Amino acid sequence: MKAYVWKQSGNSYKLRVMLALLQVPHEEIMVDFPGGEHKQPAFLKLNPRGQVPVLVDGDLVLWDSSAALVYLARKYGGEQWLPTPPAEMAQVMNWVAFSGNEMLFGLQHARRGVMRNVWTLGNLEQCQAAGRIALDVLEQRLKKNDWLALGRPTIAEVACYAYAETAPEGKIALDPYPATVAWLARCKALPQWPARWKY
Amino acid sequence: MKAYVWKQSGNSYKLRVMLALLQVPHEEIMVDFPGGEHKQPAFLKLNPRGQVPVLVDGDLVLWDSSAALVYLARKYGGEQWLPTPPAEMAQVMNWVAFSGNEMLFGLQHARRGVMRNVWTLGNLEQCQAAGRIALDVLEQRLKKNDWLALGRPTIAEVACYAYAETAPEGKIALDPYPATVAWLARCKALPQWPARWKY
Repeated sequence: MKAYVWKQSGNSYKLRVMLALLQVPHEEIMVDFPGGEHKQPAFLKLNPRGQVPVLVDGDLVLWDSSAALVYLARKYGGEQWLPTPPAEMAQVMNWVAFSGNEMLFGLQHARRGVMRNVWTLGNLEQCQAAGRIALDVLEQRLKKNDWLALGRPTIAEVACYAYAETAPEGKIALDPYPATVAWLARCKALPQWPARWKY
Repeated sequence: MKAYVWKQSGNSYKLRVMLALLQVPHEEIMVDFPGGEHKQPAFLKLNPRGQVPVLVDGDLVLWDSSAALVYLARKYGGEQWLPTPPAEMAQVMNWVAFSGNEMLFGLQHARRGVMRNVWTLGNLEQCQAAGRIALDVLEQRLKKNDWLALGRPTIAEVACYAYAETAPEGKIALDPYPATVAWLARCKALPQWPARWKY
């Protein structure tokens, strides 16, 4: 199994977390993102979107981080991280999908803009506004629940953690979101939860 | 089962399609979107994001359309629309996740802006550029495959159809995407595939 990642990418970090939680042997390949390797033909064959991460397992190529979480959870996690009963699976996927919408296009785009001055959809103010909607929804949920989807950690945590933690890098303070901050600490304290790459 | 929808909403249409394909008895509740019902406290209790659609089945409330597709497919569709083997499930979810990212924030935001002059993330040009990335990825896949994820229709089709079909409403012509246009026709020809609401 190969994980193509970039150290600043929160979506890449989601794979790093899941692979570590489930102790899946794999090769981690750090893509030369500043050098534009992700836009070169060889990489575009793996991922037509030209983005990291990509998870490759034999013939299987997954270029969406949510799909990679689904794969790892179902292949190596039994019923723990993504259970099969329809209502439970859907509740988990509700938050996984959420992590790819407001959290990505709000929190992450604000962060990316601040860090790299790349603004493909909206300006800082717009991205921050979308990001705060995401954090409001998280906070409301986490005020009354220790974990997002079910009564235990699932891939909902892995998916939503990545860009919640880095919100301040998009100049969105987490102080108004104490339940979210406490939840971030609970996630981080899970056995095998790995640190980010240094960047 | 209750489906809270709005007639112009592509995410709502995804539920309409899935409920029809699987012939699931349900009550369809047309939310007064122009009247702002989706931002009123009663609705925000169902969906903290203040968006349509919402699917309610007894105590279960799903406010993300991708999660609703997962639920319906797993509860009523056996192994057909979202199979459980990890690699197959992940391939389907790869496209379902894609439908909530570039397709939504590109194609749909361009459309919404053109139709209602609402621009929360980016301007017309930016949304169209993101939307074209989405269509390029679809087209590349559909040039060589009849269906997106597996060798048959899955919820990947249901998820991606909605905003591909309406791309022209965001002033993005589909002429450069003939394989996608042919795939839209194949989807529409599936037994029980329902028309959109009139708007």
